[in-house]
Amino acid sequence: MKGFKFAGVHAGIKKKKNKDLGLIYAENPASSAALFTRNQVVAAPVILGRKTMEKGILQAVLVNSGNANCFTGEQGVDDARQCAGLVAKALDIDPDHVLVSSTGVIGAPLPMDKFEAGIPEAVACLDSCTLEDFAQAILTTDTCTKMMSLQGKIITSGDEKDFTVTGVAKGSGMIRPDMATMLAYVFTDAGISSDLLKQALTHAASRSFNRITVDGDTSTNDTLVCMASGAGQAVVGNDESFEAFQAVLDDVCYGLAKNIVKDGEGATKVASITVKGALSQQDAFKAAEAIAHSPLVKTAIYGQDPNWGRITAAAGRSGATVDQNKMDLYFDHVPLVQKGQWQGKESEIQAAKVMKQDEISIVLDLNLGEGRDQFLFCDFSENYVKINADYRS
Amino acid sequence: MKGFKFAGVHAGIKKKKNKDLGLIYAENPASSAALFTRNQVVAAPVILGRKTMEKGILQAVLVNSGNANCFTGEQGVDDARQCAGLVAKALDIDPDHVLVSSTGVIGAPLPMDKFEAGIPEAVACLDSCTLEDFAQAILTTDTCTKMMSLQGKIITSGDEKDFTVTGVAKGSGMIRPDMATMLAYVFTDAGISSDLLKQALTHAASRSFNRITVDGDTSTNDTLVCMASGAGQAVVGNDESFEAFQAVLDDVCYGLAKNIVKDGEGATKVASITVKGALSQQDAFKAAEAIAHSPLVKTAIYGQDPNWGRITAAAGRSGATVDQNKMDLYFDHVPLVQKGQWQGKESEIQAAKVMKQDEISIVLDLNLGEGRDQFLFCDFSENYVKINADYRS
Repeated sequence: MKGFKFAGVHAGIKKKKNKDLGLIYAENPASSAALFTRNQVVAAPVILGRKTMEKGILQAVLVNSGNANCFTGEQGVDDARQCAGLVAKALDIDPDHVLVSSTGVIGAPLPMDKFEAGIPEAVACLDSCTLEDFAQAILTTDTCTKMMSLQGKIITSGDEKDFTVTGVAKGSGMIRPDMATMLAYVFTDAGISSDLLKQALTHAASRSFNRITVDGDTSTNDTLVCMASGAGQAVVGNDESFEAFQAVLDDVCYGLAKNIVKDGEGATKVASITVKGALSQQDAFKAAEAIAHSPLVKTAIYGQDPNWGRITAAAGRSGATVDQNKMDLYFDHVPLVQKGQWQGKESEIQAAKVMKQDEISIVLDLNLGEGRDQFLFCDFSENYVKINADYRS
Repeated sequence: MKGFKFAGVHAGIKKKKNKDLGLIYAENPASSAALFTRNQVVAAPVILGRKTMEKGILQAVLVNSGNANCFTGEQGVDDARQCAGLVAKALDIDPDHVLVSSTGVIGAPLPMDKFEAGIPEAVACLDSCTLEDFAQAILTTDTCTKMMSLQGKIITSGDEKDFTVTGVAKGSGMIRPDMATMLAYVFTDAGISSDLLKQALTHAASRSFNRITVDGDTSTNDTLVCMASGAGQAVVGNDESFEAFQAVLDDVCYGLAKNIVKDGEGATKVASITVKGALSQQDAFKAAEAIAHSPLVKTAIYGQDPNWGRITAAAGRSGATVDQNKMDLYFDHVPLVQKGQWQGKESEIQAAKVMKQDEISIVLDLNLGEGRDQFLFCDFSENYVKINADYRS
């Protein structure tokens, strides 16, 4: 990716010998935008990060895993600021252009000695490390790295300019709309103002990171950042070039979000629930969210059971207006319920076949209006319980 | 219980040989009140039951397990009405005084032949059966029956009149405020008007059945009924006798609700979360509900881990106003967090000891106001997943 360098090292913040300190460096100060968790309990790096992002410019991002720097009081904010200072010094850049993110256990102070030693090591590694090293360094309960890269074109007066959008993310549990223990960093070589970038990022998040759930819990540290180096030839302005950029950014964010759900703690399947025909988009959102969060629906999917009663009952308690005699329900293209009536054994057999797939698309048509929304979610297995019962021990 | 008779038989509605048809009979038409699910998707017996309860009088209640008679269209309502008719005929009472309830799998029509044979059998059993038989007949995934009985006294001009309140309930999964696959029947020999009874029952439910959660899913069939035979000597009026009655009814409902949580699918522990010091009661409700529903909190309790970060983070995303630097958190009497600060290893060791208990009391003081609310909930184990992945197979 033109204009960016990456690093990932083991600094000893995690007990295990995995990489736990990642660094992003933009060769020049980059137009940037960020979205943070809406949880009222926020970690120190989010408190500091909101201030840092006021100017819309970043040149470096430091991310540690293994410690969330949350519920650490004033000391936590001071520690985050000190981390930014250490990065700025090592790279000889403005400390106000350094964003720090943390993910991991809540409530323990940052081990500052590990950062003092680890940051220069990460800086030294920028020329030899790759995005994969960074992607590894930010993982917690994730079982794999999540990266995605797509190209786009901007055509101005017949002139074609290519641009690239590349993203990297982490997240596996505590996933829910408004983001969760989820960190995502997206880069582009396109030139774009930080205001336009914020607008594009907000739109992309509303269709990706804010429409996924693993367990319905949000975290205190969620951060989605986009940095634009402008090192390529494409320039995004307030015209049709914006749409071209938005489309590629949407796809990268959706791809990353889907990878997070796929790697959901204990997940064996990815499902999408599309609610359409709702009285309003808000109603569609409510019904889709209730279904995607329902432990009964999620365990049924794990059990490969097209348990339509649980899906329709979740819609019924969601707060959305529903009429049980108008609902149609599809598993992929199999209509199991039509106008509230079960369609019989043959449909059930077909739906049960769909449930054996790794990816399942469920569509609930309320047949009341034009409202539509979609969630991505995963199933709930015994392993989710095992992972989360033992997390701190 | 004066004025009531009970029965429970095996009619063949369930695949297994368990009892699956229960009958309650009041020797005289009884002043009655009922609360039903607030889910918009409702089962046929709830549709019919709302009409039946308009007059506030019941003489019999028929309950089947094994089939929820939900998503069964007009046929389902006709079937429910036919069941009421069969009961009325067999008992020679008014069919408008018969309430029917169903619990079990959603979407299959009621096997009416089983009811035609089973209802006379249940009626024949009223003289020899006990409340325990009825309690068994209404169970689904429950592992034990839930019954509770308490006495109270009403003193009028120095004259002491005893009364009894006895309740029976079922419910194990799909449990959440506004009720779930939960059926509860409460009886008293006190005399009371149906209006006053409705008022008392609504209050009791708000502190019991509407403050419990197993998995956050509500069902389509939830019903809480209270019948007053007036066969005893105590009479409840719109005076201090009402408070005496309310107190006993509250305790019986709370006891039944707690038994439901204790028998939550896969549950190994019962926990209460009390949120106090909230800006309002609504805020306290929101925070307590978010904590009680959080899969991360529930799996931590299963893992005997005093994971305070998950509890405070759930409060932070609940929509309630919180200030992370003001929160106090207690596990029983152990203050693990004070003014947002972790109280160190010794407190952690003490809190970890509390977590080994079968019943755990968690108190979160937001230190912002006077709002207070409480939820009862259970932990989340691998067994919850197993039970619900395999439910229909």
